[in-house]
Amino acid sequence: MRQIEGGSVTSPKGFRAAGVVAGIKPSGTKDLALMVSDVPAAGAAVYTTNRVQGAPIGVCRQHLLDGKARAVVINSGIANVCNGDSGRADAHRMCELVAQQLDLPVGDVLVCSTGIIGVPLPMDVIEAGIPKVVSELSTDGGSAAAAAMMTTDTVAKHTAVEVDLDGVMVTVGAVAKGAAMIAPNMATMLSVVTTDAAVPADQLKQLLVRAVGRSFNCCTVDGDMSTSDTVIALANGAAMGGIDEVTALSPQALDTLAQAMEQVCRKMARIMAADGEGATKLITIRVGGGRSEAEARQVGLSVANSSLVKTAAFGNDPNWGRILMAVGNAGVELDQDKVAVSLCGTPIYGQGTGIPFDEEVVSEAMKAEEIDIGVDLQSGTADIEIFTCDLTYDYVRLNAEYTT
Amino acid sequence: MRQIEGGSVTSPKGFRAAGVVAGIKPSGTKDLALMVSDVPAAGAAVYTTNRVQGAPIGVCRQHLLDGKARAVVINSGIANVCNGDSGRADAHRMCELVAQQLDLPVGDVLVCSTGIIGVPLPMDVIEAGIPKVVSELSTDGGSAAAAAMMTTDTVAKHTAVEVDLDGVMVTVGAVAKGAAMIAPNMATMLSVVTTDAAVPADQLKQLLVRAVGRSFNCCTVDGDMSTSDTVIALANGAAMGGIDEVTALSPQALDTLAQAMEQVCRKMARIMAADGEGATKLITIRVGGGRSEAEARQVGLSVANSSLVKTAAFGNDPNWGRILMAVGNAGVELDQDKVAVSLCGTPIYGQGTGIPFDEEVVSEAMKAEEIDIGVDLQSGTADIEIFTCDLTYDYVRLNAEYTT
Repeated sequence: MRQIEGGSVTSPKGFRAAGVVAGIKPSGTKDLALMVSDVPAAGAAVYTTNRVQGAPIGVCRQHLLDGKARAVVINSGIANVCNGDSGRADAHRMCELVAQQLDLPVGDVLVCSTGIIGVPLPMDVIEAGIPKVVSELSTDGGSAAAAAMMTTDTVAKHTAVEVDLDGVMVTVGAVAKGAAMIAPNMATMLSVVTTDAAVPADQLKQLLVRAVGRSFNCCTVDGDMSTSDTVIALANGAAMGGIDEVTALSPQALDTLAQAMEQVCRKMARIMAADGEGATKLITIRVGGGRSEAEARQVGLSVANSSLVKTAAFGNDPNWGRILMAVGNAGVELDQDKVAVSLCGTPIYGQGTGIPFDEEVVSEAMKAEEIDIGVDLQSGTADIEIFTCDLTYDYVRLNAEYTT
Repeated sequence: MRQIEGGSVTSPKGFRAAGVVAGIKPSGTKDLALMVSDVPAAGAAVYTTNRVQGAPIGVCRQHLLDGKARAVVINSGIANVCNGDSGRADAHRMCELVAQQLDLPVGDVLVCSTGIIGVPLPMDVIEAGIPKVVSELSTDGGSAAAAAMMTTDTVAKHTAVEVDLDGVMVTVGAVAKGAAMIAPNMATMLSVVTTDAAVPADQLKQLLVRAVGRSFNCCTVDGDMSTSDTVIALANGAAMGGIDEVTALSPQALDTLAQAMEQVCRKMARIMAADGEGATKLITIRVGGGRSEAEARQVGLSVANSSLVKTAAFGNDPNWGRILMAVGNAGVELDQDKVAVSLCGTPIYGQGTGIPFDEEVVSEAMKAEEIDIGVDLQSGTADIEIFTCDLTYDYVRLNAEYTT
């Protein structure tokens, strides 16, 4: 597997993208993104499990019933959630406008919106912006699209890898946005994953669910689950003669493609956690020895969502009691005399009691941009890595001042 | 029901208490509390559901097997959690020392510890402190005991009410501590509730569980559940001729006593939320129209534990989209077109969409010391009130600098 420097959704063959300033955001930065496959593509998506869902999600579900999609239009600044019937009409209208410009059936266009909840979309601004973003579509437009998806993100998030599938080189690329209101259960943010491999829609969905389970669903900034979160995958087969030529991939090829998708999704999830609102560091919680992946994830997320663990990380405070508290809080049966915990590689707890360590040395190690918490449950073989960030003054500042 | 000004655990007849400086806390403030019934008493307790539990909890469980207890000793500063076998021995030793001083069976003494996790108790300091706290026991020592339980609390927490039970005036009093690592499922903090009513231990337990369900379990500061949290109830029957004289209370009397216990526990829970670490305001989330109390609680706690809602409250930002997001996140089936939400008494969301309101007026109302969020699920008749506080710079400061 080869990482593509500066890669994105336009790294796979047959995809173009663009991101422009439509004028939705008061800041005057890019706020309208479009990604298009030049040829027919299989489409799949996973969505937030929040019971309050943005209007675009209903439209995506509808348009993906046939397992096909060609374009994804995304605006940032306003989320189009809780806008009632007119919100649903606006989401559909965005697809229509793109379909007209690209001469596609409306059902081939997907839509996402991200930003403030409960404010109607300025449809005149979007209507004027869509021809503009269409005119700028290009095969190196992926990073501009990523930039146009940003809300409180501080960096545009995109990546791509190249892999050999049964002798054919294919590429998997992704863009993503998300810096808060990020929590597991497909409650992440927005991401679009593209590939020029040829995969039928049902297999694409399986690959996506598997990749999301070990990436975006392992990423949490504040435990809050957004109403709009969506990960869309498009596979246009352009590296393999198109999706009409698709024959079942060999099990090895499928596995390789799965790994490639997992890798790009994990890269996005790590960058999102590191770019969490107000974050000064990325925290990776490696949970091992679980009876199941689900239990390991539950323990890791309990640690990752603990405000007390996250503030201690911010303060470079090796307060391991808070880690144990959060492990115990996960709702997973465990034996506190068996669990072992390490912080920045230093064993700090085991056999029911604290292990003496040099607090100054560990506190110094906690000042790094990336720190590790290790939890060994010693009750099985399942493992998982969870990504989060510290809880800082800036998180409070950003979120106390978001709309006012 | 009559509120007793300045009331506490020593308001009911036959109880004495004290709180002294033993020297456990580096700050030199009170850190050892003792509460004693002068006559035999029924005892009951509920504990944290964290799978990692402090050593004192195991001792309390053991000593309450017979449903009787006379004394509760509590130290603050160090939590006696994750100290292995020696921690368990220390918790037992604390009971022994009190039992010797008071000439009681060791099984009649309960113990709690609160503070930092993973540090051994300074048993020499405690051994010297116990005779001191015993010597200061008095019938107005309840507030001193409350003060000696404090960790990052800024106010000592105590209350009492008087009620008429079938013509006999009885009193229910309480002390409590807790300002962080507070979350539901009996994951609150420490509290001792005393009454001079005569109730058998099994009924006392039922009354306690009911009161805790609508008070401490409705209180959350940061969603983190402590490893030590315990609420203990002692009923010595001193207003009714002692517990040996106990005959079953009439259903009306039981109900009155239940209401009194709920009232003192709710008072404690409200004060705890208002005194949450770094808090500038108390937030009450009133959830109505639930299919069950459990569902209503789940929705209220999801709102109360949302970092985004809590930071918006700190910033006086009427960002109702975050409230909707948290309602949808509760894991409760609901119809987003039916739910109605109000903020500081102003309807802000209903019938699937935002209700226009004057943001400046609501933002001004949010500057109060107590603010209300109303959520009407419109799917049943169950209701609940949840207490929490805002998430502020000071929460981060306090928790980034706790041990270092």
